[in-house]
Amino acid sequence: MSQTALQEYETDFRAGDEALEALFVGARTHTTWLPRPVDESVLRELYDLMKWAPTSMNSSPARLVFVSSTEGKERLVPALSPGNVDKTRSAPVTVIVAHDTAFQEYMPRLFPPNPNARELFAGNDALREATAFRNGTLQGGYLILAARALGLDCGPMSGFDNAKVDAEFFPDGRWKSNFLVNLGYGDREGLFPRNPRLDFEEVCRIV
Amino acid sequence: MSQTALQEYETDFRAGDEALEALFVGARTHTTWLPRPVDESVLRELYDLMKWAPTSMNSSPARLVFVSSTEGKERLVPALSPGNVDKTRSAPVTVIVAHDTAFQEYMPRLFPPNPNARELFAGNDALREATAFRNGTLQGGYLILAARALGLDCGPMSGFDNAKVDAEFFPDGRWKSNFLVNLGYGDREGLFPRNPRLDFEEVCRIV
Repeated sequence: MSQTALQEYETDFRAGDEALEALFVGARTHTTWLPRPVDESVLRELYDLMKWAPTSMNSSPARLVFVSSTEGKERLVPALSPGNVDKTRSAPVTVIVAHDTAFQEYMPRLFPPNPNARELFAGNDALREATAFRNGTLQGGYLILAARALGLDCGPMSGFDNAKVDAEFFPDGRWKSNFLVNLGYGDREGLFPRNPRLDFEEVCRIV
Repeated sequence: MSQTALQEYETDFRAGDEALEALFVGARTHTTWLPRPVDESVLRELYDLMKWAPTSMNSSPARLVFVSSTEGKERLVPALSPGNVDKTRSAPVTVIVAHDTAFQEYMPRLFPPNPNARELFAGNDALREATAFRNGTLQGGYLILAARALGLDCGPMSGFDNAKVDAEFFPDGRWKSNFLVNLGYGDREGLFPRNPRLDFEEVCRIV
């Protein structure tokens, strides 16, 4: 084993308990928000974290619309399930997590190791669509955890009409909405009781 | 604002630089592994972190097969793209990230606030399939970041034949494979040069 490998072997990184609490164990989905804005600088920092997490062939298909103005929110409201309207109106920012259905156009820049990556996706609609949806969704998950790492709270939502959002925000049809995430600083007094999770034995097998 | 809310408002949590490095900025996709096993206790800890991150209506559809034995790896190998064989054979664990296509059976326990959730999904195949794939994928993303939070390195892969994996590991058809993640302690000497990411202005809009 090389010296570098040996050092790595001996390094036992583990995120601190406060970080594990904030990202996973203690974090909750929020629906009510403290009156504290989310600055554009925070949104840029958020993207600069999440962009590094992995996607297939570095395809990075996620696209994000940060809806923060009153006008933007009102464009979104007609597409929302009734139960999602108030929490979305009151959130400092609602992110439309979308993906670029023509993400392959960026592949020559994003994945130089495979010069045929653009053509691979351009010539196979099923692969292109699955890659965009799967990896755009992964990046939406990275967004949620990166937001929590920056002290933000999240309220992800699938309860809306994707076609209406697409018609309103992506009329040229290239980007497609996936899910929404309210962002802000949550008011813990507005939390619902936490729902249970499945046991390891129900979810996991070791073979 | 209540006293609790005020305290929350004034709390500025932010993960430390070392955690941000380990989870996002400095973390890399690994393909070569140090000779250090991943104990079952670590896999259990990993699940106990990732299970808390959010899914739609707490549906929690992801299912995980931790393939760690030589026999298990050899069952996986015939389904892999040629370029993924060696790194999968040498990884201490390869996770099959799958989802339960009948996840709705658990909804009465997972989401007591809506007693009709099981029937909602049982009666709408398109919604059920989209929910399983989207949220199973999100949970796969949480798995990757939770693993990094525990000091593990990841090598996620889509380059394999899902139908072959399903036939071999899920012959009853209820669980479906989504993607694979090699897990272990990576050897940084085996890293490829890092590929670039898109700029904020290419990916994000603020409205």
